Amino acid sequence: MTQCLARRSLYMMGMRCIRCGRIFPIGDYFEGCPNCLSGGWPASVAPAYDDAMFTSEHWKNWLAYSGEPVLGEGETPLVRLPSLEQRIGIACLSAKCEGANPTGSHKDRMSAFVVHRAKEVGLTTVAAASSGNAGVSLAAYAASAGLDCVIVTTPDMSANWRRAAEMHGAQIIATATSDERWRLVAEKTRSGAWYPVTNYLTPPVGSNPFGVDGYRAIAYELFAQSGANQPTDVVVPTARGDIIWGIAQGYADLRKAGLLTVLPKVHAVEPFPRITCVIAGVDMRETFAGTSALVSIGGGTVTFQAMEALKMTGGAAVAVAETQVREDQMELARAGLYLELSSVAALSGLKRLLHAGVVSRAANAVIVATSHGYKEEAHYERPLDTVSLRLM
Amino acid sequence: MTQCLARRSLYMMGMRCIRCGRIFPIGDYFEGCPNCLSGGWPASVAPAYDDAMFTSEHWKNWLAYSGEPVLGEGETPLVRLPSLEQRIGIACLSAKCEGANPTGSHKDRMSAFVVHRAKEVGLTTVAAASSGNAGVSLAAYAASAGLDCVIVTTPDMSANWRRAAEMHGAQIIATATSDERWRLVAEKTRSGAWYPVTNYLTPPVGSNPFGVDGYRAIAYELFAQSGANQPTDVVVPTARGDIIWGIAQGYADLRKAGLLTVLPKVHAVEPFPRITCVIAGVDMRETFAGTSALVSIGGGTVTFQAMEALKMTGGAAVAVAETQVREDQMELARAGLYLELSSVAALSGLKRLLHAGVVSRAANAVIVATSHGYKEEAHYERPLDTVSLRLM
Ligand SMILES: [Zn+2]
Ligand SMILES: [Zn+2]
Repeated sequence: MTQCLARRSLYMMGMRCIRCGRIFPIGDYFEGCPNCLSGGWPASVAPAYDDAMFTSEHWKNWLAYSGEPVLGEGETPLVRLPSLEQRIGIACLSAKCEGANPTGSHKDRMSAFVVHRAKEVGLTTVAAASSGNAGVSLAAYAASAGLDCVIVTTPDMSANWRRAAEMHGAQIIATATSDERWRLVAEKTRSGAWYPVTNYLTPPVGSNPFGVDGYRAIAYELFAQSGANQPTDVVVPTARGDIIWGIAQGYADLRKAGLLTVLPKVHAVEPFPRITCVIAGVDMRETFAGTSALVSIGGGTVTFQAMEALKMTGGAAVAVAETQVREDQMELARAGLYLELSSVAALSGLKRLLHAGVVSRAANAVIVATSHGYKEEAHYERPLDTVSLRLM
Repeated sequence: MTQCLARRSLYMMGMRCIRCGRIFPIGDYFEGCPNCLSGGWPASVAPAYDDAMFTSEHWKNWLAYSGEPVLGEGETPLVRLPSLEQRIGIACLSAKCEGANPTGSHKDRMSAFVVHRAKEVGLTTVAAASSGNAGVSLAAYAASAGLDCVIVTTPDMSANWRRAAEMHGAQIIATATSDERWRLVAEKTRSGAWYPVTNYLTPPVGSNPFGVDGYRAIAYELFAQSGANQPTDVVVPTARGDIIWGIAQGYADLRKAGLLTVLPKVHAVEPFPRITCVIAGVDMRETFAGTSALVSIGGGTVTFQAMEALKMTGGAAVAVAETQVREDQMELARAGLYLELSSVAALSGLKRLLHAGVVSRAANAVIVATSHGYKEEAHYERPLDTVSLRLM
């Protein structure tokens, strides 16, 4: 039975800048490494653990907080998709189904830890700049922990997400623009009023480091679920790279512990070229133009952590067309998985990587299915036509 | 990793009528026991197992089909709800979160087995009379298995469910009335065209016996998840009693294996008096008047299996008011769980049972949270108002 008795890992030694490697005392660095930021290169910090942890503890205890899940997050199914293997031409294809998490997305792994950390430092209001999964997830975990939650969104927040957030008792604040969302979170965080889960800088860093730490478990679970048939490629819908960084770091942990020798390549899929531009030589601090219906992986920026995750694992980045993703949403549903459009991008990206020869036809690929499809709004102009039984 | 290599249990000896006890050869008895039906008392059959199974096999292998989950169904979280314990005045309260299943409801346990059985008998079209969870779930499992799926619904099928079913490639047929739905499924089943998951008789029997068999796992999982703190009461939103029958049977299996001595009471919660009327003396074959927004547990009929589940465990039945359930939907969300209205009825029912003294304040109660809230349609008249940052 799950219970909320979280304890911070005794192996946590400090916070390490993922760019310059400096170690800082355990604490909240919402704006990333102060050193790198003042040099003009925003970069996240991450909890740094005593190496002894990786050899003396089970991987289940390698996370920032130990204890049972709060609302049942984590340990999501890995589902083999044999019919798609044939259709797209790959030896082995599975989906890591993050929609099985309590609020239907991977964000629950982050929210659980952010709420633990907020309670640890005594802040009573958690906040997210989000119009989707991150906000709803934080609202649920804040509710369960008895904390207040503020979701800063734009006026067009989708009705299904808005209703869920309201039911969880979150305060929803809409600002006129996306920029203003971040400005508001920045002000309230700097004044000590809010404990934030999401980035508010431009150029950005990753999300709350204690929250991102929870994504390492995806790698641990994949490792445990795959047995003798370990993945060679993990394909992830990506915005600012929290998940790919967590997965890459998690696999690096497993290697450190001697549990595997070769990391799978972690690939990033984006709705329009951002990371792909940076790989081609553009400064990662630029803002990249583009809009997309793939709202959960939108936004015009790139983070250091995203680039680092690809570098650590030898992964690639690929942009996908919305029309292709819409087709693939149906293709995945016809294999049994109904996913949010942004999640489906993982399959579309994998197809492109296969076509380009970046992923081998002999690969064992995992697509990270970040969220289920039920949150997307469905509209029909008119009710179904009825049939006469005599005509059947 | 999950794979679809299901094998029917070698311990299955036949099909037992749950009313008269007669044993029939393994087969499909969509209309229940022929003997009881011809006597005017429709009653389900259930797979009958060799008693040796319960002592020689692990409970994970006590089900009609063994093998890995198809899409990740089952092994759902049991989440403790400490804040609600205080509010409603009970020693221990947890929720069995069936929304973590692949299509977001308990029905996935049934669909997985129905699809296994359809393949076993060589039928290529599965069918459900459903406007909600059962239909969408069957559509997903049929898609994953390469079977055709027909969902027979009424014209007002909710958009969120309709979209999911269409994405999974199901054929959706709307009949003018609910009665016609059953008539169509009856005809197509009797002609051998469709393999049905849902009942089509009036008075009804339970759903497909191979499907219902999958619900026994809820009891096994609750037993494994509860350790030294076993539930005393399991409260279940109920229409025709598939879940309560499965849970009661599962606990009886555990007792047969010597793993526990006392069964928890399994209580049924309904949106208007049906089972409660039968307990009060009304013939269970009557049709009961009532409508409700709790669509997943609607309908005007009672089954023998529902009555039997209560009798086996000493459970009670209770009807709840829609206004109360709407309040409780928010109360549950404020404890972290956003559930479909019909699922929330379990909490409303538990409150009434506590108030009436049927469930003790010292109880360890589990509410079965059958489905998450994201499938309910959300509508807002207008977008959110924006705030000026200077006013914050
Ligand atoms: Zn640095
Ligand atoms: Zn009989």
